Amino acid sequence: MYGASDVRVETVPDPVLQQPGDALVRIVRSCICGSDLHPYHSMPANPEGSPMGHEFLGVVEDTGAEVSTLRVGDFVIGPFAWSDGTCEFCREGLYTSCLHGGFWGADGVGGAQAEALRVPLADGTLVKVPGIGEDDAVLPSLLTLSDVYGTGYHAATQAKVTKGDTVAVIGDGAVGLLAVLAAKQLGAERIILMGRHKDRTDLGLEFGATDVVAERGEEGIARVRELSGGHGAPKVLEAVGHMPAYEQAVGIVRPGGVISRVGVPQYDDAPVGFESLFGPNITLNGGPAPVRAYIEELLPAVLDGTVEPGKVFDRTIGFDEVPDGYRAMDEREALKVLIRP
Amino acid sequence: MYGASDVRVETVPDPVLQQPGDALVRIVRSCICGSDLHPYHSMPANPEGSPMGHEFLGVVEDTGAEVSTLRVGDFVIGPFAWSDGTCEFCREGLYTSCLHGGFWGADGVGGAQAEALRVPLADGTLVKVPGIGEDDAVLPSLLTLSDVYGTGYHAATQAKVTKGDTVAVIGDGAVGLLAVLAAKQLGAERIILMGRHKDRTDLGLEFGATDVVAERGEEGIARVRELSGGHGAPKVLEAVGHMPAYEQAVGIVRPGGVISRVGVPQYDDAPVGFESLFGPNITLNGGPAPVRAYIEELLPAVLDGTVEPGKVFDRTIGFDEVPDGYRAMDEREALKVLIRP
Repeated sequence: MYGASDVRVETVPDPVLQQPGDALVRIVRSCICGSDLHPYHSMPANPEGSPMGHEFLGVVEDTGAEVSTLRVGDFVIGPFAWSDGTCEFCREGLYTSCLHGGFWGADGVGGAQAEALRVPLADGTLVKVPGIGEDDAVLPSLLTLSDVYGTGYHAATQAKVTKGDTVAVIGDGAVGLLAVLAAKQLGAERIILMGRHKDRTDLGLEFGATDVVAERGEEGIARVRELSGGHGAPKVLEAVGHMPAYEQAVGIVRPGGVISRVGVPQYDDAPVGFESLFGPNITLNGGPAPVRAYIEELLPAVLDGTVEPGKVFDRTIGFDEVPDGYRAMDEREALKVLIRP
Repeated sequence: MYGASDVRVETVPDPVLQQPGDALVRIVRSCICGSDLHPYHSMPANPEGSPMGHEFLGVVEDTGAEVSTLRVGDFVIGPFAWSDGTCEFCREGLYTSCLHGGFWGADGVGGAQAEALRVPLADGTLVKVPGIGEDDAVLPSLLTLSDVYGTGYHAATQAKVTKGDTVAVIGDGAVGLLAVLAAKQLGAERIILMGRHKDRTDLGLEFGATDVVAERGEEGIARVRELSGGHGAPKVLEAVGHMPAYEQAVGIVRPGGVISRVGVPQYDDAPVGFESLFGPNITLNGGPAPVRAYIEELLPAVLDGTVEPGKVFDRTIGFDEVPDGYRAMDEREALKVLIRP
């Protein structure tokens, strides 16, 4: 990406092993993320460009001397952050705060919207899945474990969604829809999905939403309160990242409740004073999901078909179509675009 | 209070029973709160004035027809919010969000810096303590159960302080010092108190602080990080309410940690974006403490002398001296002022 709305497909040198802990991975599937649309809107023009993409399935092509758990030919899932798996934060499950880790497309590490990728700290980062073929029907669902499914799950676990809960989900993008699925898996009884794209909220209903609220602002707040006993939802999962979604969350959360954010905030300051969070003892939490922590946990139900988070992909493209894939997602023509190199 | 720095002692009509659930209480002890200093700084001049005070011990003098748990002569503790004890929020322990409750000094209910007070919803609000005399040495400690001790305890419980924890407390006012005491009671191993009034931080050390950091800003942040393993404190209790204290909290909290606020925020908007809270998955919680929920729990150790939270009172005054009591607290000449009518 060279700036807002400026995505180009280019031929670059193949990545090579640089550190003894690196692995080289041939990308089998990657995709475009809702969070990629933030720079697509606002990135200042930059002649250097930024490699894009942070979600991938791939096959290990080569490994550095210190890689001990992966072999050439292994099929792997790549989480959206790379991490050593051994530092004090990784040991606590907070892989996104790894002391030695980082994010794709920065600091000399490439992006996953590519044919190949150098993966630092490969033992800690990659999750091997035996027995997967490169054209299996389960690939889209496996790919959601790179980010969107684990991110929706993080929203739900941070909000401590539990059996019988009433949960409101703000946003009908892939993360919001998978937050619905996660809330359902964790036993939520009432799941109110706020979104206004019928094809998406229909998928939300399939994933377990019990109610859809298409209204926004004061009207949307009133509707959610009405659906949740008059005082709001005790658990609110915010999967957008823009200020109106934050304000919506504050409006619909029940006193004593939680606003769990996984939409990357496109703001720095927000209301947290007496009227918004403090007076009613609201908890605000969430952040970039340590999806690496969730892959093993969520994998079995994906593999046996109990859940099909891959339904969020409604378009598959090749590399030449990637710029158009961004446009299609940005214009809400596609929910989530899968890239097949 | 008639405006900033304008506190007057006046003779007003005696309160009378208005509702069948009311009780009339003769005040035995009350006090001035750090939060009373906020309007003392900023209240616009108002010829109507506001009755002040929300912490008291008293004796029941009369009860309405529906009061069933209190009798004339009962010695009671009054929490800083009144509540019915039966609504859905009270049943969950969130008494400060009671559907039928409220706060002292508003909506036709008086303040506790007075000789007598009408207590609405008396059965739900007041906690009877049998066998207490009006001059017992335990009175100052009992009085802290009205607010500051329960508030410090709320900070610690919301942060889920547990055995072996490292906790940082911001603020050496009465609430901060009692947050130290609460963290100690909950098993915290390392308690870092940020404050720069030596007489106060000395009391903090007596209450269980293991370290005192007098520095502020970047220097204070560096010092706390150094004392807590390099990455900050996993539990931060913010007992001030001004923006620099919030910023300090963000600076010293460890990734994945909690900032629990009990200082009443004197700001509306604050940093909550990627750099401050979101990126490191910080939880922000807290609010007005539902102290009513904690009184029974904290009472035994107060009565048997295991803890002496009443040590936060370093001055006792009569009514005529109340305006000077505000001045003394505001000028940090007194930590907390007890009023003996």
